[in-house]
Amino acid sequence: MPKEMFLETIQSPGISHLSYIFGHQGQAAVIDPRRDCDIYQQIALEHQARITHIFETHRNEDYVIGSTELQRRTGAEIHHGAALEFQYGLPVRAGDTFRIGNFLLRVLETPGHTFESISIAVYDQDYDEKRPILVFTGDALFIGDVGRTDFFPDRKEEVAGLLYDSIFSTLLPLGDDVILCPAHGAGSVCGHGMAAREFSTLGYERRNNPVLQYTDRDEFIRYKVSESHERPPYFKKMEEFNQNGDVPSMPAVPQPPSMTVEQFAERMEQDLQAVDVRSPEAFGGCHVPGTLCIPLNMLPAYAGWFLDHDRPIGLILESSADLPEAMRHLIRLGYDRVEGYLGSGLTAWESAGRAFRTVPAVHVCELAERIDNGEDLVILDVRSASEVREQSIEHAIAIPLGELPNRLEEIPRDTPLATFCGSGRRAMIAASILQRNGFQNVSDALGSLAAVMSISCKELLPTGD
Amino acid sequence: MPKEMFLETIQSPGISHLSYIFGHQGQAAVIDPRRDCDIYQQIALEHQARITHIFETHRNEDYVIGSTELQRRTGAEIHHGAALEFQYGLPVRAGDTFRIGNFLLRVLETPGHTFESISIAVYDQDYDEKRPILVFTGDALFIGDVGRTDFFPDRKEEVAGLLYDSIFSTLLPLGDDVILCPAHGAGSVCGHGMAAREFSTLGYERRNNPVLQYTDRDEFIRYKVSESHERPPYFKKMEEFNQNGDVPSMPAVPQPPSMTVEQFAERMEQDLQAVDVRSPEAFGGCHVPGTLCIPLNMLPAYAGWFLDHDRPIGLILESSADLPEAMRHLIRLGYDRVEGYLGSGLTAWESAGRAFRTVPAVHVCELAERIDNGEDLVILDVRSASEVREQSIEHAIAIPLGELPNRLEEIPRDTPLATFCGSGRRAMIAASILQRNGFQNVSDALGSLAAVMSISCKELLPTGD
Amino acid sequence: MPKEMFLETIQSPGISHLSYIFGHQGQAAVIDPRRDCDIYQQIALEHQARITHIFETHRNEDYVIGSTELQRRTGAEIHHGAALEFQYGLPVRAGDTFRIGNFLLRVLETPGHTFESISIAVYDQDYDEKRPILVFTGDALFIGDVGRTDFFPDRKEEVAGLLYDSIFSTLLPLGDDVILCPAHGAGSVCGHGMAAREFSTLGYERRNNPVLQYTDRDEFIRYKVSESHERPPYFKKMEEFNQNGDVPSMPAVPQPPSMTVEQFAERMEQDLQAVDVRSPEAFGGCHVPGTLCIPLNMLPAYAGWFLDHDRPIGLILESSADLPEAMRHLIRLGYDRVEGYLGSGLTAWESAGRAFRTVPAVHVCELAERIDNGEDLVILDVRSASEVREQSIEHAIAIPLGELPNRLEEIPRDTPLATFCGSGRRAMIAASILQRNGFQNVSDALGSLAAVMSISCKELLPTGD
Amino acid sequence: MPKEMFLETIQSPGISHLSYIFGHQGQAAVIDPRRDCDIYQQIALEHQARITHIFETHRNEDYVIGSTELQRRTGAEIHHGAALEFQYGLPVRAGDTFRIGNFLLRVLETPGHTFESISIAVYDQDYDEKRPILVFTGDALFIGDVGRTDFFPDRKEEVAGLLYDSIFSTLLPLGDDVILCPAHGAGSVCGHGMAAREFSTLGYERRNNPVLQYTDRDEFIRYKVSESHERPPYFKKMEEFNQNGDVPSMPAVPQPPSMTVEQFAERMEQDLQAVDVRSPEAFGGCHVPGTLCIPLNMLPAYAGWFLDHDRPIGLILESSADLPEAMRHLIRLGYDRVEGYLGSGLTAWESAGRAFRTVPAVHVCELAERIDNGEDLVILDVRSASEVREQSIEHAIAIPLGELPNRLEEIPRDTPLATFCGSGRRAMIAASILQRNGFQNVSDALGSLAAVMSISCKELLPTGD
Repeated sequence: MPKEMFLETIQSPGISHLSYIFGHQGQAAVIDPRRDCDIYQQIALEHQARITHIFETHRNEDYVIGSTELQRRTGAEIHHGAALEFQYGLPVRAGDTFRIGNFLLRVLETPGHTFESISIAVYDQDYDEKRPILVFTGDALFIGDVGRTDFFPDRKEEVAGLLYDSIFSTLLPLGDDVILCPAHGAGSVCGHGMAAREFSTLGYERRNNPVLQYTDRDEFIRYKVSESHERPPYFKKMEEFNQNGDVPSMPAVPQPPSMTVEQFAERMEQDLQAVDVRSPEAFGGCHVPGTLCIPLNMLPAYAGWFLDHDRPIGLILESSADLPEAMRHLIRLGYDRVEGYLGSGLTAWESAGRAFRTVPAVHVCELAERIDNGEDLVILDVRSASEVREQSIEHAIAIPLGELPNRLEEIPRDTPLATFCGSGRRAMIAASILQRNGFQNVSDALGSLAAVMSISCKELLPTGD
Repeated sequence: MPKEMFLETIQSPGISHLSYIFGHQGQAAVIDPRRDCDIYQQIALEHQARITHIFETHRNEDYVIGSTELQRRTGAEIHHGAALEFQYGLPVRAGDTFRIGNFLLRVLETPGHTFESISIAVYDQDYDEKRPILVFTGDALFIGDVGRTDFFPDRKEEVAGLLYDSIFSTLLPLGDDVILCPAHGAGSVCGHGMAAREFSTLGYERRNNPVLQYTDRDEFIRYKVSESHERPPYFKKMEEFNQNGDVPSMPAVPQPPSMTVEQFAERMEQDLQAVDVRSPEAFGGCHVPGTLCIPLNMLPAYAGWFLDHDRPIGLILESSADLPEAMRHLIRLGYDRVEGYLGSGLTAWESAGRAFRTVPAVHVCELAERIDNGEDLVILDVRSASEVREQSIEHAIAIPLGELPNRLEEIPRDTPLATFCGSGRRAMIAASILQRNGFQNVSDALGSLAAVMSISCKELLPTGD
Repeated sequence: MPKEMFLETIQSPGISHLSYIFGHQGQAAVIDPRRDCDIYQQIALEHQARITHIFETHRNEDYVIGSTELQRRTGAEIHHGAALEFQYGLPVRAGDTFRIGNFLLRVLETPGHTFESISIAVYDQDYDEKRPILVFTGDALFIGDVGRTDFFPDRKEEVAGLLYDSIFSTLLPLGDDVILCPAHGAGSVCGHGMAAREFSTLGYERRNNPVLQYTDRDEFIRYKVSESHERPPYFKKMEEFNQNGDVPSMPAVPQPPSMTVEQFAERMEQDLQAVDVRSPEAFGGCHVPGTLCIPLNMLPAYAGWFLDHDRPIGLILESSADLPEAMRHLIRLGYDRVEGYLGSGLTAWESAGRAFRTVPAVHVCELAERIDNGEDLVILDVRSASEVREQSIEHAIAIPLGELPNRLEEIPRDTPLATFCGSGRRAMIAASILQRNGFQNVSDALGSLAAVMSISCKELLPTGD
Repeated sequence: MPKEMFLETIQSPGISHLSYIFGHQGQAAVIDPRRDCDIYQQIALEHQARITHIFETHRNEDYVIGSTELQRRTGAEIHHGAALEFQYGLPVRAGDTFRIGNFLLRVLETPGHTFESISIAVYDQDYDEKRPILVFTGDALFIGDVGRTDFFPDRKEEVAGLLYDSIFSTLLPLGDDVILCPAHGAGSVCGHGMAAREFSTLGYERRNNPVLQYTDRDEFIRYKVSESHERPPYFKKMEEFNQNGDVPSMPAVPQPPSMTVEQFAERMEQDLQAVDVRSPEAFGGCHVPGTLCIPLNMLPAYAGWFLDHDRPIGLILESSADLPEAMRHLIRLGYDRVEGYLGSGLTAWESAGRAFRTVPAVHVCELAERIDNGEDLVILDVRSASEVREQSIEHAIAIPLGELPNRLEEIPRDTPLATFCGSGRRAMIAASILQRNGFQNVSDALGSLAAVMSISCKELLPTGD
């Protein structure tokens, strides 16, 4: 048993990151490890395997790569594409091969998303030395989408073309029956239209992936160039980390301490960034004034937009049992400076008689009715540009959530505001940002577009919908 | 190692129930097991011991005893006091002894809380055959309090006197240096004034337990007779279960399924009791109309007041990870009919465009100010009679939470209401009950008395405080 | 998140059984559930999904199917092929479809392994309604092998032909790029040559699966008819269970109690089947006379050969922490009557001064040398017929382990015996059987064939190797 | 709830070390933390408390104190007795007090075991400000024994007298009803006669602790001076660590990697200390030549005798699941240099055809018989001097296990040897040491004294027994 082959997919929810550990005969390789890398060691231990190789499919921009951390712990070699100069690890080139037990891993150069992007094809030498059974495609090819190509704005066409070539000339020719293992799943900021489905093959994608239907190179480039993607400010920091490899060793204090109400309040007056990771409903029901709302499972996607890497963070939790998950999410994004959490949470704050605030929930029907009645009310729609393009709503100012802090002057300060998004969750983040910036009359349209569509709330839908 | 002595205290939070497993040399006894009794088997397994004896210190009234369930699984004998006719198990009398390895367990009759109450003294025969080192006192003697004696209203003095005798003539004479292991800790409905401290000795209690300072028998009786205790309606059901022993085998489906919004809504229109176990803040922020709010960790204390054993229950959770804890709490109280939980919780409900409700949070200072400004506003204080006696607040109608459903007519329907309690948590339960009963204008004074005291909110405190 | 698609493979090691749970949008289906089915409920809970369908790809013969248990807990419908009359569940036929969220499951009839075998093709309707992305193939098609066709000895050719048709006319035409999800992985008794690799596609198998290279129907049949498979006696019991569906509800006492040395010894003299699940080395080092050695991870594969379903079982463990795993293995095979385990294990037995036995380990080189020196020594090779065919060794009597109890008379009683297998593990089971049957001079060639091959021990290899 | 009092005892099995975490109202103190201190942080988190104080009752000699590690993680202050100059932390003196919530911790100076030993009395200020309810006694007073006083050989009487005074003048006068929380439980090398019982009071000890029956100071001193204790060589290293506080931060690689047979064998030829932590039976059944046997749960007690802190360690495990426990045990003793473990354990070694060895088990009756028959056979009894004093056996050479490596020349090399101890477990350690030193004919008397006594094996008992 311990000598058997194993392949496990490790999901990092929120950033929709997929990493892999693959092993055979007591040896293992990890593809794109995250920073909290105990999981890879744990799996290796179960299979009594030694992690000997770490592959990075590209310099990641949406999380801190765990390669150096995992190397520190295991001594494994790190490999990445030769087209970028990394400050650590060893460059690999098309055709380089590595053995893991009786399996062969062969490097493919698949630039486009970035110049140094590589893919790794896996051959089961017991069965077929010529054609792989599986390919790790990084951010080149996803299930239902392809990698974004907007990171080099002045070379847009070039990189889109490179991606076309990587997919159509390097990956798809591996064979229809090759299983696809990409670096992201549905919900990632690294692509739009990824499938909910977690498994696919090159053949299935060739036939069904919408982007792969642009079989004409120029059409493909045109499509990619026309895409718009969000680019959170923390990407820059991640790129630094991931190119230099000077990722700090995993913080020595992964479990920050409890803070009293007094300590927490005092530190907020200084430089503490207070983040409330409870549910949007709980935040709406009662919260500490001045806190930023980012529900726990939205931390990976939104912390990078709004939190400063250089200031300490204070957490407000539903339960202390949520602390480890919050820490994992933050550490993956390089936020190591978590100073503590508010002990006993909101109950402590409320019981201390401290001032608190609420964000009233408002139903979309009520919004519609109030607008219908001529009330002066602004709907602030914080969905992304592409979501708005797909389905706009009436009576709304549209500012994507990430841009909100820099576009506050576009929002009237004397009018009642209802924040709005896909389901009302991002809307609560927006509401917390507005309140921190002095907006007084803010409510959250819980349900938001999902509710509008479910009940066909005509007043909020453009004519013709 | 496996043959060593072990003693573990198993806490069942919420009902503040303490059960014990005690073992030596491969054999073990359990005192007052709860119904979800895997934990005792697990501990026995770790110590490679066989559970051979189960002791019930009395017929419990506040939870379903797990004796028969544990007997079904282990074959252990059940023992209880002879003064009540149980439909199962074997009666024991003062002086009966049992061996667990090299330890001797001796039965003491300690009536008062109930007539059949027993205590069990533990002797380490390797050291002292004459004097025990530890005594399991059931509901006779607690840390900082004694058992309640209000279960036989027409024999009040008699049972209070019995308890006096049990404590002063049977328990305390065991010796000052005997360790005390009671059946409840702080927060139980089985006594008022239990200490937060979880450990004590007979000597320490003799000197410091406030009730034991009534060394005069008549004074002790007078004090006990003057006490008032709450008696949740489910006590009757528990007494039946626990006397007859016909506790259903642990439900075959301890994990009820996910329900869609449509299923949940439809079943609520029929006979489903919907219970929302999220935090008070989340309930206040947004909830399904008609649901009863009982925050998860308050389920043990309040489910028994408001839930019907004969109707199915539907749960609304913060996260599906909370389901096992909710189930444990309910099963301990004999609520086996949990039909399901609302899949994806409030998000699903909101996204479906269904109507929702809120309970606005209001700060005690704002309440004081509004009252000061002459606003017609009613504070509904749902703390217990004894809490109110200890610290009343101004401008309030006081109705203990448990009595609320039967005293709704005492509350004005046309005036804004702010529910109030010790910290605002029970107040949210009250608010949910009011909303279910058609009260329209209900808010919750989060922080409540704790906030009032913290900031010395004079307007809400009686003159002189 | 909770509404996302999920597919998880649940491995039951030892029987190399693979079951699957597949869900989308709050609904889930389970394929070939095992009897200890908490795992499916747990996964469904994490995804807030309700299990609505259970599919059995065929009447399993190597383990107790968990369909009725899972149905009891969830209310899901059970479906199986129409070609066999099951006493429970609903028959399905080719073309029947079921929806799980936005995915379509379509039934394929794929007889051969059994007559009622079905496969289930999965279509992602968001992408391709015509061609599936994945197929659950049960025991029709494995990775690197196909299902065995020896269950109907008088209709051998017929069923082998059916399997050919199922594979070549029904499964492979689904498309090269379809992912394969079979009911067994490497190590199963349901096939010989399964790959260590756990993932494949129809195209990869079409090209590389050795059995699928018999593209000629007659050749394929000839090959299948020539195969030989072992058929443990418990298969009969499993077939009964799995056709009638009268699988007992999961035993009420999944955690049998500790037994003292006296109890264990006394019960062994009566009807207790004592099974020692410690490592072969520990068994060899010291064991209770009369016990059967089956190392823990070999229980799934060998319990069914040697244990009687109608007699109680007593376990001897390395640690009480191993009890849950031992119980899971036994319950999956329908062995519910585990009476207890020897508390404190061998240490207790040894400390009680009871008689014990050993099985000396002997190195293959020493064996060779002794034989070389003319010593009268018998090597008993208990590998399967097919293993022996592949690599025989000199100086050995070959009796497959499963046949050993019935072929003891073929073994000389007065000669020193060294048991031998692939690595020395099955050899220890054999040694325990020999000792129970009065053979006095038994040793175990730890390392066995693996050692012989590693060091090219010429004396034990046939000339020419 | 989160603000409640909590007291948890953390047992470190094997060294029988007891540490404590005590908290109230969001604050916590830890008494004598071990080095793998996640457990304290975990408990603090559950109670939403911040660890603010660490107390060391004395400079420990039997394990690496975790104070500096815990301080690194939490920022808590470290306190120890003023009578020794520590290179870290703050000195405290009799009468110093610290608050943890509403509890008061008062320092008592209780020298004797060491000069700087302190005890800490705990007062519940809600109940009794004058008399404590509990006292942490470190190594001054145990349950059933008192601390050893042999660490200052030239001041024996002085320190024994100090201990007498500490117990009779400082501790016992606190009151009979005070609960006792010592730093060690049964099985520690820090005392002989500790009770199996884990709970006691000062009164109970006063009356029943055998050593406290020496109420005369001189008698007490005489008794203590006459005691003999073992003193493993690693004590010196621990004393250094624990006085200087320069304990390395917890090793960065708590999970050493799998090693192949080749790697392991090669490293053994260099400087690797190979330790086999499987059961004695498994070691006896088959082991790698040259390895030291220390069964997993005996590591804490015996690693310090036989392992060199300056050489790397290689582990041989029953299962990779045992690695974390092995690592914990070793790290607690300061053995940070674990290089790896033998992947797939003995099976891999055997399958590689490598040479292996066994230690035959021999029953005490057989020993007796062989001796009776005049066979030239030596029993090597490795029990401690005090055990031998209590019950000697015939025909044995007695050398305490710890002294074995230095007294090998006392053992005949040409005679069959049977190692012997209390149950045969330490005897296997001895057997492994003998084999490493070239003794050829070594067997282990599994059961040993326990078996002798159980069956009254007269031949091995001195006449008169």
